[in-house]
Amino acid sequence: MKPIFAVILAAASAAVPAIADPLPSWNDTGAKARITEFVDSVTDPTSEVFVPVAERIAVFDNDGTLWAEQPIYFQMLYALDILQQKAEEDPSILTSDVLKAAAENNLEGVMAGGHEGLLEVINVSHANITPEAFKSSAHEWLTTEDHPTTGLTYAGMTYQPMLELLSYLRDEGFATYIVSGGGVDFIRAIAGDAYNIPSQQVVGSEGTTTYAVTDGVPALTKEGGITFIDDKEGKPVGIMRHIGKRPIFAAGNSDGDFAMLEWTTAGEGARFGLLLHHTDAEREFAYDREGHIGVLNRGLDEGPDRGWLIVDMAEDWSRIWSSN
Amino acid sequence: MKPIFAVILAAASAAVPAIADPLPSWNDTGAKARITEFVDSVTDPTSEVFVPVAERIAVFDNDGTLWAEQPIYFQMLYALDILQQKAEEDPSILTSDVLKAAAENNLEGVMAGGHEGLLEVINVSHANITPEAFKSSAHEWLTTEDHPTTGLTYAGMTYQPMLELLSYLRDEGFATYIVSGGGVDFIRAIAGDAYNIPSQQVVGSEGTTTYAVTDGVPALTKEGGITFIDDKEGKPVGIMRHIGKRPIFAAGNSDGDFAMLEWTTAGEGARFGLLLHHTDAEREFAYDREGHIGVLNRGLDEGPDRGWLIVDMAEDWSRIWSSN
Ligand SMILES: [Ca+2]
Ligand SMILES: [Ca+2]
Repeated sequence: MKPIFAVILAAASAAVPAIADPLPSWNDTGAKARITEFVDSVTDPTSEVFVPVAERIAVFDNDGTLWAEQPIYFQMLYALDILQQKAEEDPSILTSDVLKAAAENNLEGVMAGGHEGLLEVINVSHANITPEAFKSSAHEWLTTEDHPTTGLTYAGMTYQPMLELLSYLRDEGFATYIVSGGGVDFIRAIAGDAYNIPSQQVVGSEGTTTYAVTDGVPALTKEGGITFIDDKEGKPVGIMRHIGKRPIFAAGNSDGDFAMLEWTTAGEGARFGLLLHHTDAEREFAYDREGHIGVLNRGLDEGPDRGWLIVDMAEDWSRIWSSN
Repeated sequence: MKPIFAVILAAASAAVPAIADPLPSWNDTGAKARITEFVDSVTDPTSEVFVPVAERIAVFDNDGTLWAEQPIYFQMLYALDILQQKAEEDPSILTSDVLKAAAENNLEGVMAGGHEGLLEVINVSHANITPEAFKSSAHEWLTTEDHPTTGLTYAGMTYQPMLELLSYLRDEGFATYIVSGGGVDFIRAIAGDAYNIPSQQVVGSEGTTTYAVTDGVPALTKEGGITFIDDKEGKPVGIMRHIGKRPIFAAGNSDGDFAMLEWTTAGEGARFGLLLHHTDAEREFAYDREGHIGVLNRGLDEGPDRGWLIVDMAEDWSRIWSSN
C-alpha cells in the first residue's frame, strides 16, 4: 500500500501554493511589494476588499507598456515596410508628400504630417486585405524582421517583467486584456504567441471592415479608414464596449492611458493603477515629458497623489527583454 | 486500506463521462441527432475534424433564437415604457409623430416610421444615462414586467432547449457568444442571469458612449445615436472585431443571420449552421416569410442545400419556455 500513500502525499503537497517568486525579473523594491500586496488583498476570500474571479479584469496598454515603442510604434514601421513594397509595384499610390516621404523611409517627413500623416500611411498599407492575411503578414514581419537599434526581432522586444506580471495575474484568477491605441488586427497577430492573450481579449483601434461574397466565397476585407480610436478617452469607452465592465487593474505608460487609469481606479473597493516610466537609456530608452511617442506629463504629475504606482524601469526591473 | 480503495474507485467512476441526456427538452428527432453528432465529431481527438478548444467558438443570435421576439423585440417594448415615463415628466421630448405614437403606446404608428422610427424611440429612451444605470434599469424591467400575451416575465421567455444547447456546448469546451442586432448594453443586462454568458461574450449593436469627469467623478454616458449595427453583413464584421476569429457554430432565426451562418459554415473543417423555424403557434408564435420581425426567406430557401439544420420548434422541442 505504500505506493498509494506516496501518491496521496504527493497530491497533497502539490496543492500547497508554490512559494516560487512569480515576478523574478522585478527587483525587491517597493514596486514589486505593492503589486503583490494588492493581488494578495483582492484574492484572499477573508479580505475586506476581496474581488470574485469574474470581476478580476486587468487591462494593459501595449506600446511602451508590454513592448517597446521606439523609435516609433512598431505598427508604423511595419506600415512603412508594406507601403514601400506596394510603391515598388505601383508608384502611383504615392499621392501625397507624406506617402512619398514614407516610401523614401524619411521618418521626419512622415512625422511632419502629424497624426493625419500616420493614419494616411496606415490606411494605404493596411487596406484591401482580409484580416486573416493581414495577421499572417504582420506575424511574419514581427517574428523575422530586426529592430533598427537593438537587432532583436520586434516580437522579442516584449518586456520580461510585464510577461511575468500578466502570467502572475492570470494565475491569480485575473482575465488579462490588452487595450491599445494600436490596430486590433495588428496586435492580435502576435498577442497569442507573445503574451498568451487570445484574440478576444485584445481591444484596439479599428478600421473599416466589409463583408462580401465574391465568386461564391464569403470574406471580410479590411478597407482604408479608421472607425474607432482606442486612445485617451476612447480607452474607457472601448473597455465598456468590449468587456462591458470596469477593470480593477490598469497599466499604461503615457498620458494616452490617463483616462483608463482614472476610470479604473475611481471604482469602489481596491483598485490598481500602474504607469511604466521609461528611465533606462542604457538597457532600453529614456523618455517621458517630451517627444512624439509615449509622452507622459499628467501621469507623472498627478499619478502618485492618485495612488498610482510609477514603475521606474531602471530601478525596479532586473531584466528588460523577453528574448535575452 | 479498503476505504482508500473505495475513494480511488469513486474518483475513477467520476471520470467516466455522464450518460445523462444533455438536451432533455429536445425530442429524439433528426435535429438533436445532428447536433450531438457534430459536437462528438469536433471534440473527439481521434476525429479527422477535431477542433482544439481555443477554436470552439459558437455564436447565437438573441431575439427569436434564445428568447422570443413577438409582438416586437423586447428592447423595443422596454424603450416604449421608458419613453412613456420620460414623456410624463417632460412632454416636450415628443418632437416627432413617431415619438408621439410611442408615447400613446400606438405600436402601428411607431412601426409606420420604419427602421428610422424604431431607432428614434431607442435614441430618446436610451440616452443620457450611464451604462451601469441603464443595465440596472433593463434588468429590473426584464425580471419584473410581464409579457402582454404570455403573462411571463421577459427574462422567463428564454427557450429552455436553447439554454440546454448553450450549456451542452460549454460543457464540451465551446465558448458561447451572443451576436445580436439588439443593443449590447441591453443584452448584457440579463445575459449572465439568463444565459450564463458573461458581458465580454456579448456582441451587439452599439450606441455612442462618451467619457467625462464631472465634479471629480469619471463616468461613461450613453448618448443618442448608433455607431454600429450588428445585423446582416454587420454580424460577421462584429464577430471579427470582437472575437477576432471565425466561429465553427452559428445559430439564428432570420435572414438577418444569413451572412453570419454563411461565413461561419464556409470555413474549413466541420461547421454547423442552425436556423430556428418558428412553427409553433400554440406554444409560442408561428411566423417566417412575412411580417416586420424575424423574417426568414433566404434561409428557408437555401439553408437545407447549404447543410444548415432547420429546427422545427413544434416538432423538435418538447418544451419551449425556461420558466414553465
Ligand atoms: Ca503606450
Ligand atoms: Ca433574430
